[in-house]
This record gives sequence, structure tokens and C-alpha cells, in this order.
Amino acid sequence: MKKLAFGIDIGGINTAFGLVDEQGELVAESKISTAAHPYYSDYPTYVALLCQEMHKLFDSFAADSTLAGIGIGAPNANFYTGTVDTPANLWKFKGDEPVQDEKLRVFPLAADIAKSFPGLPIYVTNDANAATIGEMVYGNARWMRDFVMITLGTGVGSGFVANGEMIYGHDGFAGEAGHIVIERGGRECGCGRRGCLEAYCSAIGVKRTAFELMAKLNAPSELRSIPFAELDSAQVAAAAAKGDVIALETFRLTGMRLGQALADIVTITSPKAIFIFGGLAKAGDLLFDHVRHYMEESMLFAFKNKVQVLPSALQDKNAAILGASALVWKELDK
Amino acid sequence: MKKLAFGIDIGGINTAFGLVDEQGELVAESKISTAAHPYYSDYPTYVALLCQEMHKLFDSFAADSTLAGIGIGAPNANFYTGTVDTPANLWKFKGDEPVQDEKLRVFPLAADIAKSFPGLPIYVTNDANAATIGEMVYGNARWMRDFVMITLGTGVGSGFVANGEMIYGHDGFAGEAGHIVIERGGRECGCGRRGCLEAYCSAIGVKRTAFELMAKLNAPSELRSIPFAELDSAQVAAAAAKGDVIALETFRLTGMRLGQALADIVTITSPKAIFIFGGLAKAGDLLFDHVRHYMEESMLFAFKNKVQVLPSALQDKNAAILGASALVWKELDK
Repeated sequence: MKKLAFGIDIGGINTAFGLVDEQGELVAESKISTAAHPYYSDYPTYVALLCQEMHKLFDSFAADSTLAGIGIGAPNANFYTGTVDTPANLWKFKGDEPVQDEKLRVFPLAADIAKSFPGLPIYVTNDANAATIGEMVYGNARWMRDFVMITLGTGVGSGFVANGEMIYGHDGFAGEAGHIVIERGGRECGCGRRGCLEAYCSAIGVKRTAFELMAKLNAPSELRSIPFAELDSAQVAAAAAKGDVIALETFRLTGMRLGQALADIVTITSPKAIFIFGGLAKAGDLLFDHVRHYMEESMLFAFKNKVQVLPSALQDKNAAILGASALVWKELDK
Repeated sequence: MKKLAFGIDIGGINTAFGLVDEQGELVAESKISTAAHPYYSDYPTYVALLCQEMHKLFDSFAADSTLAGIGIGAPNANFYTGTVDTPANLWKFKGDEPVQDEKLRVFPLAADIAKSFPGLPIYVTNDANAATIGEMVYGNARWMRDFVMITLGTGVGSGFVANGEMIYGHDGFAGEAGHIVIERGGRECGCGRRGCLEAYCSAIGVKRTAFELMAKLNAPSELRSIPFAELDSAQVAAAAAKGDVIALETFRLTGMRLGQALADIVTITSPKAIFIFGGLAKAGDLLFDHVRHYMEESMLFAFKNKVQVLPSALQDKNAAILGASALVWKELDK
């Protein structure tokens, strides 16, 4: 009997979920709207609907299989407690709700889903950690005991594996390399502080760099006709591909800052490889060449020319669902 | 029959070694000169003498005990290979030696000592990792699965424990937080690069900061009568204790830089505690208060008020020998 794991990816807009086999094959998938349940008081309805749709998917496509477990990737998810702790963009208080204690916004997601799937192992972690485990179980890190995953999307996420195990840290929240401060007092970050790697090397960071360069340099650029609110990193990449000087310099600076930060990260965990994943990674060598160059230039002697910077093997797949499902195989393998 | 482990601490001047029981009690100790064997060609004589003196110590003080293993802390020591790889200050080439290939300076120390102690498990790692394992086996980290050790001496060393295991990295050299770059293009570091944490927060970094401040500020200071070559961090600490403004500001800046770097480190491994060890740690609250203050000020929200900064429990003990011996108990415990 074929064994399958549910992988669930909870984003601010949609919750995608699917059934995945041990080889990383996505057997069936579906989704529900997260955004349709925006409030604290909507959370019970959301969980009920999610469980109902999961049962429906399983019964339709996999009734002859065994369900091995459920893995969930969600923002602020805590591996140790199975909770989603005060997520910035999920299940917020309505303006008119009387009690607005943030402590109430610790959602026991694993326990709540377990009520509908009794006896089944359920694991949660954040999306970057899920992507990391996906790489380890199905991807290019299958034989690696020490590696790092960097996810470049709207934000910058990360996951660290040492001695073959995910580093969750004492509280379950380890692996936030996007919030290493690379410039004291620098750009405002979404976290409320300043100068975080994420403020420079996320998709939005790329846009901010492009605007800084348009102010600093006089070179003509097709980006000069696009307002800040409309520019995205894909447009910057497209301009760079056509030789646009501002766009090219934007990617050089982005790669430099990421490469320098990676050299610092290497001093701590000395990974065999660093995988880059996410929307911005699609820029390919436009970004990777600079990352590699500046990482090596900044690298401590002992680590020079040892650490590979590679694209994720899950880049073009349904990585979020795969990564979440991989949690199940990883934990059952222990 | 009592079980003992040898702990060996190889420094540039002396090699100290001792017999330690499972509770961290140093039963007997001795030393030989490392400096008397400075050259590549002296290495075999050094190993022979060390083994001879180890046998002598064991036979004199512990002949009725069982020897469980040998742990060695040495610069550039590689846990995986048991080698000491091109150490900067040990067993160098003489000026007149014909072949000066640095690849020859990979010393198979564990294998060479094993010839004199056949069948005995022998482990090597660098001194900061040994101190880390000492804290885990005998010290304040005995119940911790996730912590960090920072050693503040002539240099800045570090050791990372995650999931209860030392992070050695893919090559055996992980844990070099002293070489995180905290100021791009900043102070020259002994590693040949610029701006490393070590150039600011080591004992020598403290001296450099004091001299920078004497140049920058006009405040009177007893440090102004001491030449650079003669000043040490203990003198700066003594001046600070008397209210010397330059000395106090030196420790504030040192604590600030270390605290900010620790906040970055926490984003990666999320330790339960950070232990501070070494000569500079003797400055106590003069340093620790600033470290804690600036670490919390710089900390990402998710980690605020969670991570303890504590002195090492081995601070006033023969920590280098203890740490090296702890390697044996840690590995045999697996």
C-alpha cells in the first residue's frame, strides 16, 4: 500500500495542500482561501474547512493509500509546540473586538487538525524550514549533513542543517538569517528594526536598491519610467538582461550584500553548500555570479573555495507543499 | 575501577595535559614546552616527548584507573580527520628548509599519539570547541541542547551546540564567530581580512579601542601614560574600575559590538544561553552589562528577553584541559 504525506502551505492569500509520496511526487493537490478567513474569530471555521477539504482530497485521489502524517509550513510556526505564534498577517483581531491580547493569537494548529485526523503525526514549521527539509528529503541536499537554505522572496528566509538535523534552536524559531543586520542604522525592515539583510536582498530590497541607484547615478534606464509602487524585481531582472546599467548595478549590489552575509554565515556552521530558492533566484547567474564572487572575496581563509552556492532542486516545483510534506518523512525516519 | 580521560591543551608556549574523571575533577596534571619544538622537523620529537610524559603521569598517579580516551584541544585541529592543519604558530618551516609546501604541515596528531596508546579513542578539536564541550559535560550547559560559547582571549573563538551536538560543519572547522565581519573595511584582523569581530572584542581589540578613544576624546586618563606595546586589557579593566572615562567608554563600545554581533548570531541558532569565557570575561559586569543591553536592543522581536548571557562555569578552573578531556566523555556517551 502506497504511503502518502499531506503537505500544507499556509500563505496570506491561499492555503495550498497536497498528497506527496516518499519520492516527492505530488499525487493530488487543492487549495482553500486563507484571505477569506482574515480574523481571529474566523480561525475555527478556517481549520474546519481545511480539514474537510483535506479529507475530500484524500478520499477522491488516494483512498487506496496509507496516510503517514501531515506536515505544515506556516509563518511563525513553532516546530516544538505545533503552534502558529502571533502571525503578522493571519487571523488578526477585528478593530471592534473587545479583548485584543496578542497572547490569544497563539494558534494550536497541529492539535486542532489532529482532532480531525486522530492518531496521525502532525508537524509544523515555518516555510523556509519546510523548504530546507524539502531540499534534504527530495532535492539536491539528499546526501548532505551540513547545508544552508536561503529563500529569496518578498522576504529573506533561511534554514540551517547541521549534523543531518534541522536547527530549530531552543525555542523552535532558529534560522532567521534574513534579519542579520548588515548595515547598522540602514534601511527600515518589516521587522521594525533597521539594516536587516532582508531589507536589501529580498525582492523588495532589489526594488529599493534600484531606486537608490536611480537617485545616485545619471545613467539612462527604462526603470526610470516606472513608479515605485509598480516596479518589481522581475522587471529589474528583465532590464538587466537587456544591459540596463541601473538594473545591472542593482543585481551586483544585491549579490555583493548577500555574498558578504553568506561568508559570515559560513564562519558559524561551515556548510557544504548553500541553496538559493525563491522568486529572486530565478534571476539565475545574474545574481548567483555576484553572490559567489563576493562570498569568496569575503571568506575567511579556512573556508575559501569549499562552499558551493547552488539553486534549489525544488525551484520550479510546488516547493512549499513538497517541503511541508517532507517534514513527515524526515521525522518518521528518525 | 575509576575511569579517567586525558585532556591535552596545545598552546604556542606550553602543552598542558591532565587526567580528568567523569565529574570534571582534575586528578593529575603536567606540561611540556611547545615552544621548545618550534619547527616542522621538531614535530616527531614533540609527539614522542608528549606521549612519554603522558605515560609517566598516568603510571605515577592513576595506574589503578582505566584510561577511557584522549581529548586534544589545539589550534586548527580538525575533529573529523584528527589532524592539526597548517597551524599559524606551531611547527613552522625553518628558513633554510628546502621544501616549504604548506600541505606538508597537516599533522596527523591523533594517529601519531595513537601509536603510543594503541586501541584508545583519541579526539581532537580546536580550543574554543573544547571549551564548549567542557561547558556541556561539566559546566553550566549540562542540560542544554542549544547554546553558544564565546571565548574572549587574545582572539575571539566560539563553539555552537544545536540539538545537543557540537556543530563541526562539513569540514570540521565550524564555529569561527570571531571572524564575522562587523565593520566592512574596518580594523585589520590577524586573519588577513578587515573588520572581524575579533579585531574589536578580543583582549587586543580592547586595547585598540582604548587607543582610538584616546585619540578621539580629550578626557584625562591614566592610560595615556602607557605605550601601545605595553597596555593590556586587564589594565583597561582596572582603570575602568576606578572610573577612568576612556576605560569605561572602551568597555561600553566593546560590549556594544559584541552584543550586536550576538543578536545576529541568535537569529541563526537561537540558543538558550550564550556563555562567555576567557581572560576578558574576568571584567565581569563591566563587560556583561553592556553585552546584555546592546544584544537586547539589537534583537529581533521573536528572540527578545529569551537568551541568557552567562559566565562560563569553568572560568576559574583549568578549563583548557577540562574541555579537551570532555571530548572523550561526550563522544563515548553517543
